[in-house]
Amino acid sequence: MSSSEETAVHGPVLRANTDFYHAFESLDFDAMCAVWAKDASVVCVHPGWPPLVGWVEVRESWRSIIAGTDYMRIRPSHEQVFFEDTVARVICIENIYTVQQGMAVHSQVAGTNVFRQGEDGEWRLVQHHGSPMGTSAGPEQAEG
Amino acid sequence: MSSSEETAVHGPVLRANTDFYHAFESLDFDAMCAVWAKDASVVCVHPGWPPLVGWVEVRESWRSIIAGTDYMRIRPSHEQVFFEDTVARVICIENIYTVQQGMAVHSQVAGTNVFRQGEDGEWRLVQHHGSPMGTSAGPEQAEG
Repeated sequence: MSSSEETAVHGPVLRANTDFYHAFESLDFDAMCAVWAKDASVVCVHPGWPPLVGWVEVRESWRSIIAGTDYMRIRPSHEQVFFEDTVARVICIENIYTVQQGMAVHSQVAGTNVFRQGEDGEWRLVQHHGSPMGTSAGPEQAEG
Repeated sequence: MSSSEETAVHGPVLRANTDFYHAFESLDFDAMCAVWAKDASVVCVHPGWPPLVGWVEVRESWRSIIAGTDYMRIRPSHEQVFFEDTVARVICIENIYTVQQGMAVHSQVAGTNVFRQGEDGEWRLVQHHGSPMGTSAGPEQAEG
């Protein structure tokens, strides 16, 4: 696969992946709903949580998380995409920036996102799994 | 899909999933290698680890984990399987039993396993992601 072909194929999946994290850091519930497939097969594992299965359960978890969050910056890095038929697996590192007691805290989560291409050509999230990798905090970061 | 059709489709994937955990608790490196696809697209996220990408990196992590483990019991429960073309997503809870300082420790990990069906019909693991859910320990469990 040439580089331009690769970009053409990877681009829409990476955009869908970016849309997911942008919806989260914007605390935009409607945008979050838009990125997901909405059937009984969707799965979400938030860091430290048991698996949530099915759209209603996944949706309500996001409603609760978004309602309970005041500030969130989350930026994916190290994205890699792998395709099998109409399924794309994205693996990435989620860089999460929050403020706790006046200190900037940077934590990292390993993220697996599985997208399925619908008949309309759109890639929609069917599985998200995040697991904590570590945390670093320091007052010198609070200015950033 | 009827119940028997469902069993016929799900059976081979669930067996592949069981083979993965059996290889792990048997500390059998060759059996562990046998369950994985062996190309650049395989991904493994051990609990707390960054993502490992590509068969060589994944294989060496298992070699190290198996060599460094004396005793391990790991039993999947709550398995659910979802299919997209030649891809099967398994979500499950991994029940892990270890002994620490004479106490039986039961911990749970949320597990995502993605299998791809090869041209030979076999389902091989292309992505594993495990994330800690919690731990319980007590002397009364040490006998179990």
